[in-house]
Amino acid sequence: MAEVLRVSVVLPAGGTGERMGGGTPKQYCPVLGRALISRTMEAMERVSWISDVVVVVAPESVDLMKFIVHQYGHRRVSLVEGGPTRHRSIFNGLRAFLEDHSLGRALQKPEVVIIHDAVRPFVEEDVLQQITRAAKENGAAGAVRPLVSTVIASSSDGCLDHSLERSKHRASEMPQAFLFDVIYNAYLQCTDYDLDFGTECLHLALEYSKVRAKLVEGPPDLWKVTYKRDLYTAESIIKERLAKHLCIITHNKEDAIQIGFLLHESLKSQIKNVKAISSSMCKTAHELQGILLGQCYNFVCINVKESDFEETQKLTSLLQSSGICPSYPSVVVSVHLDFPEQSGTQDLSGIRDLAKEAQKADVLVYSLLIRFPKDEVQLQENVREASSIIMALIKDRNPVLTGQILVAGKK
Amino acid sequence: MAEVLRVSVVLPAGGTGERMGGGTPKQYCPVLGRALISRTMEAMERVSWISDVVVVVAPESVDLMKFIVHQYGHRRVSLVEGGPTRHRSIFNGLRAFLEDHSLGRALQKPEVVIIHDAVRPFVEEDVLQQITRAAKENGAAGAVRPLVSTVIASSSDGCLDHSLERSKHRASEMPQAFLFDVIYNAYLQCTDYDLDFGTECLHLALEYSKVRAKLVEGPPDLWKVTYKRDLYTAESIIKERLAKHLCIITHNKEDAIQIGFLLHESLKSQIKNVKAISSSMCKTAHELQGILLGQCYNFVCINVKESDFEETQKLTSLLQSSGICPSYPSVVVSVHLDFPEQSGTQDLSGIRDLAKEAQKADVLVYSLLIRFPKDEVQLQENVREASSIIMALIKDRNPVLTGQILVAGKK
Repeated sequence: MAEVLRVSVVLPAGGTGERMGGGTPKQYCPVLGRALISRTMEAMERVSWISDVVVVVAPESVDLMKFIVHQYGHRRVSLVEGGPTRHRSIFNGLRAFLEDHSLGRALQKPEVVIIHDAVRPFVEEDVLQQITRAAKENGAAGAVRPLVSTVIASSSDGCLDHSLERSKHRASEMPQAFLFDVIYNAYLQCTDYDLDFGTECLHLALEYSKVRAKLVEGPPDLWKVTYKRDLYTAESIIKERLAKHLCIITHNKEDAIQIGFLLHESLKSQIKNVKAISSSMCKTAHELQGILLGQCYNFVCINVKESDFEETQKLTSLLQSSGICPSYPSVVVSVHLDFPEQSGTQDLSGIRDLAKEAQKADVLVYSLLIRFPKDEVQLQENVREASSIIMALIKDRNPVLTGQILVAGKK
Repeated sequence: MAEVLRVSVVLPAGGTGERMGGGTPKQYCPVLGRALISRTMEAMERVSWISDVVVVVAPESVDLMKFIVHQYGHRRVSLVEGGPTRHRSIFNGLRAFLEDHSLGRALQKPEVVIIHDAVRPFVEEDVLQQITRAAKENGAAGAVRPLVSTVIASSSDGCLDHSLERSKHRASEMPQAFLFDVIYNAYLQCTDYDLDFGTECLHLALEYSKVRAKLVEGPPDLWKVTYKRDLYTAESIIKERLAKHLCIITHNKEDAIQIGFLLHESLKSQIKNVKAISSSMCKTAHELQGILLGQCYNFVCINVKESDFEETQKLTSLLQSSGICPSYPSVVVSVHLDFPEQSGTQDLSGIRDLAKEAQKADVLVYSLLIRFPKDEVQLQENVREASSIIMALIKDRNPVLTGQILVAGKK
């Protein structure tokens, strides 16, 4: 895509979030510890052929946005001040490509501009590609979804006037894409009434540039975070995605390897992608980076008694020092084996301090003691219990429970 | 409402949930351990002036539904077999009030019939009352919501034809209510095409009974569980609601009372409604029932060393034996105090078995050891940590972590 076309994005983020019941506008609400808008910007920056992302911000939020852009290293983002309505904000965003309106670096006019919403974080490269292609061919394109509810027209006395046939109508979603001149010229020509009360870019392109947008069926995850409940949903979707990869790192001692193997067997049925490696294979930040780039944010680290929690310590300090700014909190489950004949107890009290330190770098450390009985059947039962606990920790990613010592199996 | 009118409900639940990506139809998916349809039926049964709830079920799901109705004690529910489409199913539901089509007891024809969706569990008495009143006056009424997205009409070549003005249109949601004869006669007169391809009852009432439905603005929580992500949302909404009430039960010993007081202070800022009582006040199932009917599903039970976890044991056995079929799992946090000068350790290993037993009755027991240092400031810090842990347990309601011993404060 990049060789042929210059493609950039305008992301209006000036909304005040009145449907959330006041308070923080929804684009700034945290989702897994990071403002929603940052998740959306990241989704755009993941796409290699997108040149610039112009984010249009309410004047009073410019400082907050500058902080977010800096904090999470959004390198392709430029900020532009918004206007009082959605259309005026988008228009400001488009102008930034022509004039020097941007609060940051100079921008180059793209052939195709994608317009998206700050509060739709789950946009994938696939649909961006489809609408960009369609915009190149048709001048304009937009993602649509089937209607979930019937749409009705009401009369002035608050009664049903008529209902629309559901199959002939679609919900217009985002992203939308336009040949730059098509949408820019539409904005130049449209009326003040349009700028103040309109919301639909496809409509402007039709009305003023005479371009009939191509409609592209988008996936359900394109939905717009509108109500407070949508924030829960966004967090749940991310947590579910994060729970698809797990890396088990074992000490080289025999018992550790056995538990590593059993856990691998048991977790395989619950997680799509479980990888087991020996701790000697994961010694440098570079190797770890390889694992993280494979989108793995979950680690089970199997220690042996002789080393207390040295393996966990090594891993967490690698995670903390790897120089990657992680998109999501990592989970490290520090597994320890508890033999009935073992003399003395392992000193795990240091895990608490380790967990507190690691949390500052968004690494969530929990410890899990697995009882290791002589009886093979009982051991397998304990490993099954351990797997359930690991899954629960990974799915919840609860920062409050870090440093706690959980137990699988009966004494 | 009941003195004036007989009001009953038809709940079509025959959908196959194709938008969930196959698998279990969404009305049977568990939400906090119970099928979604049961949550919706319960919402209807909570309303005292609703006489009957006719649930229309796909023939292949009748046995499953019978099990659910029995399991959760849905006493006002009657089952009817559905047809191949939504309208045919609703029609079957309406006929059940006239003929003896019901799979259970005989039904009486209501003046007003409410039609709702199996997959909208968060319907409140308030909106039911509004639409029932409006139906009595107008013949028909339905809940509506503002459109979240612009609605567009597409041309046959998949391009934008025109977009609808958002302010003049509404999404038609459920519940809807009708004078029984208005909707029944509409079904009698409508065509096979309507029955096979239509979905909107308000439309039938307009077309065949010439009744223009009154539109009532409904709350956002009326939304329809459509996609898999909506199940996460439903669960989060329930969890948030459950986290609004907490009851602290303390042993009469001085230390326990002190911790109870400090926890109460600390939790008050995080929970709307915290009640603290002495364990002597909560001795019978009857007293407990009073608390549960106040919709409290969260308990913190403060034990003292001398009694191990006797207080927790008493409470959980009351919860198990109270004869109430609870709508949601209860959380019991068993608090234990850990004094530095204490000789010997408390034996909490029995908590694990207690928790396992209690879980069968949907009571989730966790234990929490609070370090009790001499230093007042440190104690307050530990109590703050304990409060965070309690909040996390209440918000997550994770069945996997029951029986675990968590710790607040450093040794």
